Amino acid sequence: MPTDPQPASAPASAPPSDQELRTLDAHWRAANYLAVGQIYLLTNPLLGEPLTPEQIKPRLLGHWGTSPGLNLVHTHLNRAVKQRDLDAICIWGPGHGGPAVLANSWLDGSYTDTYPEITRDAAGMAALFRQFSFPGGVPSHVAPETPGSIHEGGELGYALSHAYGAALDNPGLLVACVIGDGEAETGPLAASWHGNKFLDPVHDGAVLPVLHLNGYKIANPALLARLPEAELDALLRGYGHEPLYVTGTDPMAVHRAMAAAVDTALDRITAVQRAARQDGCTDRPTWPLIVLRTPKGWTGPAQVDGVPVEGTWRAHQVPLDQVRDNPAHLAQLEAWMRSYRPEELFDAHGRPTEQVLACVPEGTRRLGANPRANGGLLLRDLPLPRLEQYAVPVDKPGVTLHEPTRVLGGLLEQVMADTAQRRDFRLVGPDETASNRLQAVYGATGKAWQADTLPTDEHLAHDGRVMEILSEHTCQGWLEGYLLTGRHGLFSCYEAFVHIVDSMVNQHVKWLRTTRRIPWRAPIASLNYLLTSHVWRQDHNGFSHQDPGFVDHVLNKSPEVVRVWLPPDANTLLAVADGVLRSRDHVNVVVAGKQPCFDWLPLDDARAHCARGAGRWEWAGTDDGGLDPDVVLACAGDVPTQEVIGAAGLLRRHLPDLAVRVVNVVDLTRLMPSEEHPHGMPDDEFDALFTRDRPVVFAYHGYPWLIHRLAYRRTVHPHLHVRGYKESGTTTTPFDMVVRNDLDRYRLVMDVIDRTPGLAVRAADLRRQMADTRSRHHAWIREHGTDLPEVADWTWGS
Amino acid sequence: MPTDPQPASAPASAPPSDQELRTLDAHWRAANYLAVGQIYLLTNPLLGEPLTPEQIKPRLLGHWGTSPGLNLVHTHLNRAVKQRDLDAICIWGPGHGGPAVLANSWLDGSYTDTYPEITRDAAGMAALFRQFSFPGGVPSHVAPETPGSIHEGGELGYALSHAYGAALDNPGLLVACVIGDGEAETGPLAASWHGNKFLDPVHDGAVLPVLHLNGYKIANPALLARLPEAELDALLRGYGHEPLYVTGTDPMAVHRAMAAAVDTALDRITAVQRAARQDGCTDRPTWPLIVLRTPKGWTGPAQVDGVPVEGTWRAHQVPLDQVRDNPAHLAQLEAWMRSYRPEELFDAHGRPTEQVLACVPEGTRRLGANPRANGGLLLRDLPLPRLEQYAVPVDKPGVTLHEPTRVLGGLLEQVMADTAQRRDFRLVGPDETASNRLQAVYGATGKAWQADTLPTDEHLAHDGRVMEILSEHTCQGWLEGYLLTGRHGLFSCYEAFVHIVDSMVNQHVKWLRTTRRIPWRAPIASLNYLLTSHVWRQDHNGFSHQDPGFVDHVLNKSPEVVRVWLPPDANTLLAVADGVLRSRDHVNVVVAGKQPCFDWLPLDDARAHCARGAGRWEWAGTDDGGLDPDVVLACAGDVPTQEVIGAAGLLRRHLPDLAVRVVNVVDLTRLMPSEEHPHGMPDDEFDALFTRDRPVVFAYHGYPWLIHRLAYRRTVHPHLHVRGYKESGTTTTPFDMVVRNDLDRYRLVMDVIDRTPGLAVRAADLRRQMADTRSRHHAWIREHGTDLPEVADWTWGS
Repeated sequence: MPTDPQPASAPASAPPSDQELRTLDAHWRAANYLAVGQIYLLTNPLLGEPLTPEQIKPRLLGHWGTSPGLNLVHTHLNRAVKQRDLDAICIWGPGHGGPAVLANSWLDGSYTDTYPEITRDAAGMAALFRQFSFPGGVPSHVAPETPGSIHEGGELGYALSHAYGAALDNPGLLVACVIGDGEAETGPLAASWHGNKFLDPVHDGAVLPVLHLNGYKIANPALLARLPEAELDALLRGYGHEPLYVTGTDPMAVHRAMAAAVDTALDRITAVQRAARQDGCTDRPTWPLIVLRTPKGWTGPAQVDGVPVEGTWRAHQVPLDQVRDNPAHLAQLEAWMRSYRPEELFDAHGRPTEQVLACVPEGTRRLGANPRANGGLLLRDLPLPRLEQYAVPVDKPGVTLHEPTRVLGGLLEQVMADTAQRRDFRLVGPDETASNRLQAVYGATGKAWQADTLPTDEHLAHDGRVMEILSEHTCQGWLEGYLLTGRHGLFSCYEAFVHIVDSMVNQHVKWLRTTRRIPWRAPIASLNYLLTSHVWRQDHNGFSHQDPGFVDHVLNKSPEVVRVWLPPDANTLLAVADGVLRSRDHVNVVVAGKQPCFDWLPLDDARAHCARGAGRWEWAGTDDGGLDPDVVLACAGDVPTQEVIGAAGLLRRHLPDLAVRVVNVVDLTRLMPSEEHPHGMPDDEFDALFTRDRPVVFAYHGYPWLIHRLAYRRTVHPHLHVRGYKESGTTTTPFDMVVRNDLDRYRLVMDVIDRTPGLAVRAADLRRQMADTRSRHHAWIREHGTDLPEVADWTWGS
Repeated sequence: MPTDPQPASAPASAPPSDQELRTLDAHWRAANYLAVGQIYLLTNPLLGEPLTPEQIKPRLLGHWGTSPGLNLVHTHLNRAVKQRDLDAICIWGPGHGGPAVLANSWLDGSYTDTYPEITRDAAGMAALFRQFSFPGGVPSHVAPETPGSIHEGGELGYALSHAYGAALDNPGLLVACVIGDGEAETGPLAASWHGNKFLDPVHDGAVLPVLHLNGYKIANPALLARLPEAELDALLRGYGHEPLYVTGTDPMAVHRAMAAAVDTALDRITAVQRAARQDGCTDRPTWPLIVLRTPKGWTGPAQVDGVPVEGTWRAHQVPLDQVRDNPAHLAQLEAWMRSYRPEELFDAHGRPTEQVLACVPEGTRRLGANPRANGGLLLRDLPLPRLEQYAVPVDKPGVTLHEPTRVLGGLLEQVMADTAQRRDFRLVGPDETASNRLQAVYGATGKAWQADTLPTDEHLAHDGRVMEILSEHTCQGWLEGYLLTGRHGLFSCYEAFVHIVDSMVNQHVKWLRTTRRIPWRAPIASLNYLLTSHVWRQDHNGFSHQDPGFVDHVLNKSPEVVRVWLPPDANTLLAVADGVLRSRDHVNVVVAGKQPCFDWLPLDDARAHCARGAGRWEWAGTDDGGLDPDVVLACAGDVPTQEVIGAAGLLRRHLPDLAVRVVNVVDLTRLMPSEEHPHGMPDDEFDALFTRDRPVVFAYHGYPWLIHRLAYRRTVHPHLHVRGYKESGTTTTPFDMVVRNDLDRYRLVMDVIDRTPGLAVRAADLRRQMADTRSRHHAWIREHGTDLPEVADWTWGS
């Protein structure tokens, strides 16, 4: 349903006059000056007096090398934004160049708007300098604290996928994205070039990559910088771009070339969008890209102690590192800073001059003040339908079977339908939406695809809002960029392979943990994972596809951010999904099966159970809810729940007078101490549910020791016995998998017998019978390749 | 030191005759037949009678779609290997096509050599079919069980980096590498194309990528398959390759084109190697690459139930999935299998005919039998120098300081020097060798680099054995390929960013766990990580660079494989390094600092300490080694050790009669129960070291709950109090980091006072003094930006 917005960019403007170029250079010099000042100075910001050692920071930290390039890009983006009244943000891939982005934010006034104590004058400049990389100050990289940024300048690889994520469904937005030649070597970045095959020129904004080749990484030449020109050009054209080259060392020549390249790029973008939006062109466009080739540490010290620095890897961090102790270094620093002619750039009060600010846009057009980079400001609640329409009827637990993710697919289809106009919900995944049985969504939207199509293709659409690429990194990056700019989404992934983005989720959790403490950052929609095709049901993939450890990984992170949900059936999955899609500033991990699974709870019970997060399932047990059952059978996860219910049934039949309590845990963090996680259960509640001293046999979805790690402080802990996945698996049947890992119902009954006082003798026959059944399983499966009929045909409730 | 080996490939051969093409086609049809048989049949392998439903497997599992393409590549590699007597292996990126690789191994006899019960006749064929994806049989993917493979066909992305790793320092080897168009979308694969900038045509072998574009992934078109031809060509040339295209649907035409492409590629490789090895050419060569464009599920059912299957994503797994219940499907399967004309391919006994085997090489030239793919067979012990030459002298603990990794660098330099001729040791890392202070190695070798160089570059060398690329994925993939083919190596990495390869290490641990149970797989050198630039010393990078959770991740994996080492000083790092470089079939994680660190132990003590893995440091404590110290101060990791020693010093001074035991843990797995890890400490030893009931204050390098997870079964556990990193950090000083996380010496003293009976009153003053010092720290650091002088100037031993 094209909304036919106008192209984002106005028509081409004239090349800059010499006078305008001088203002651009003044802005650039000012930013460079401020970047150096942040790295070195405690005080004396305007160099009103000669520099002295005690004015120099005791610890010199920061990355100079990339800063002049970032400053150049920022200066020229300023010009274009102002001239064309663009709605634009920039992703600063080389975010180690924090001094540059902070300098620009201070220059455009957005820094002072955000932090009034850092005024745009000499006092504020001194404070800006001092706080940088200083204890109690600001980090050395572009960080959540940096106005205008949605991209932490820490781990490299995600700039371009963040940019595409930000541009999706923002048809009026330009997302510039600086990619360093170091970052360009990473796998995630290399994959994300293909984002242009997914960007719809009608409904999405534009991404303008700026590949900054300054030649070196920390200690090595960068690969792309050392490709022959023709090879680099072929590569970038192979990525689907039209490269525009800006190369040089002379500032005025580079300004002229950069202004022309930016103008050309924006004209091309305008033409692409016009063709798509007004002329109905559906060919995949060739988007422009700028290659900026300038020296690393440009305008910094050419040599230090007789060794080349500018234009080499030695300019990466702090080019002069003995400034406090070596008078020659101190003098060189002062000369370096004065080379920017600060007296022309700042007035006597330290305020930037009119010339410096000539290119700077106003208000929310400033890159440091665009609300897209503080997405929570723009976020609207997702329209979520009533769950009753999708819930499965459950008259009796354990009779009917549903595929939970397929049931969820119905809900997601409605969300897609209800956001067809708003376009603020996306589903991402590595080519697994249908495999994960969510394909109902195709009733409401297609899969985004701008590349060629064939008649046999299905569900591909230029304007689709399902995003599939066989790159978990790209999926994650897209979704992060989308959420950070104020929209909603869900990432569905095979459980084992979500580890591919372990390090990305680390960074996102750190971002959220930090932004929760920053008052001006508005809450954003949570990053929601649906992990399915999980460890217990890799029937045909086997050992390589079995890993339930993402939950462990996530639970190491900040408790105010992370949440883990293990819905045991279709209705609980619906209730959980409803909750996580409403939540803010969290990372929610939902683990749910796609295979047929018994329905245990009607919707209302499922809702109540999810709200409590953990509770007694009285219908499954034989205890009276008091303080002293004989044994507790606990479970978390769909397959463990099925086995626990199976075990409870065996115990009910064979030991009817044994008081068995069945507890299901759907919110895993409820097991944590209440001091350690906001969802943590108070001790008295925990004791009432799990008892203080009865044997607890706990069947858990993942690695069993995680439960001990969460519950070690509880009174009942010495009596807690956990079964889970212990890295035993292959290509086999579902029931064989639980047997291999001692999580099967027969083993659980044996555990109960072994751990409940008084049962050893009384239930010796039952124990033997359980062991025999397990032996029969082993023989049967080798012969038939299928599960024992008594397991395959089992139901609880019929 | 060029060894000037001869080029790997003999000169070009003539194009295949029609007769030869017919033999190739026969081999290919046989492999296709065997692939289908594995997916479907329990018995009746030669279709001696019409198929009946009960001859069909009850669970149909496997990937047909990619199999015909893999079979085609294998057939043509056979031909080339035989004709040119090549030493070659193949990395099967689309390893889901297990049926294909197994079929070929059975055809060339290597399967029967490896598994004598699977004979190369009708009985063996039946067993081959039945075992596939059958409980108790073999996995559905290429797996460790597959002869000739070093590459698990599970997670996608690592084929090409494995291929480059295998080719390094194997100048006579050809490594073919099939890359599926799905895998080509992943980030790790996209990054690994640049391996050709590191491959030395003199000392390394050749990699021949075969990009297999069959058009579809699980449910979507593949991106590269849908690029316009010119764009794809530009991309591959941009990757530095000369693409050779093989496109078609007619088998004989494709055979002819494929034979020609393989011949051309091998001729090109010969020419490249001759130019480098004989003519001394040092230009980076343009290596050939084959693009194979054939339909997905080629030769399978064109349509099923009226829907197109061949050439679409529907051919991905099992094209006919109702064979047991739907007679039409059964008939279609039989027709499909008979379309390969099995009666021409196998004799009456089920043995492949002479025509089928005409292209198959002999002995260890067979792809299923090349010893390079069972690297342990070729592995030689690494020459390791005496540690005495590199050890730092320690007369008294805690007086002198050394940077542990820099000390290790000396040892590694010697290993590099001593392997200069053998060339079986490599150091890999993401542009951090010097940052991690291992640059002494450049005294013995350079950094591999075939791209352009500039006069300002340092340490780059065509034949260098340090490998640096800003891609942890590529580093890991290279090293895995190198180790799996029988060599040694070390991966040095920033601690936080090693999470980037979490999922890769999962797969490698699974590989090792499986191969340890496979008698014919010889042990290989361990995968050794040196994690430095660790969580406590991100002075200028801050929060984004702080993550000690890789240890947690690794400790979830198979205990027979994983080892974690936390050497507290330079000499213990040497002792640990010596051990891990000698070990086999492990994944060793060594966490060690690069910053100046107190020397605690002389070399002999360090060796003894590392051999025990954990022990009492009597010189640091005040207890007599008996069973009843008042308190135990335990530590693991360099920074925690320093703080614990600091705390022990404070206690010694202020509470001299308190019996404080200091315990250092260097082998973290010693904390685990002995039933759960081979290094686990027996309970009596644990109790003697940590006591059964005394307060234990444990300062740990990483997330504190890991220690609880390892030790929860120990008697003393209720008295165990752990301090560690709790996600609190920013750009700040080293001591401020430990204060922020309550790991500092003053806080540890307070913990001792709070937890040791009787101290609350007696040591109230001391406690207040500690709290005051912490307050002073907070004020001091905000003012000065440096640590308190009493901390900065502190030593233990002087």
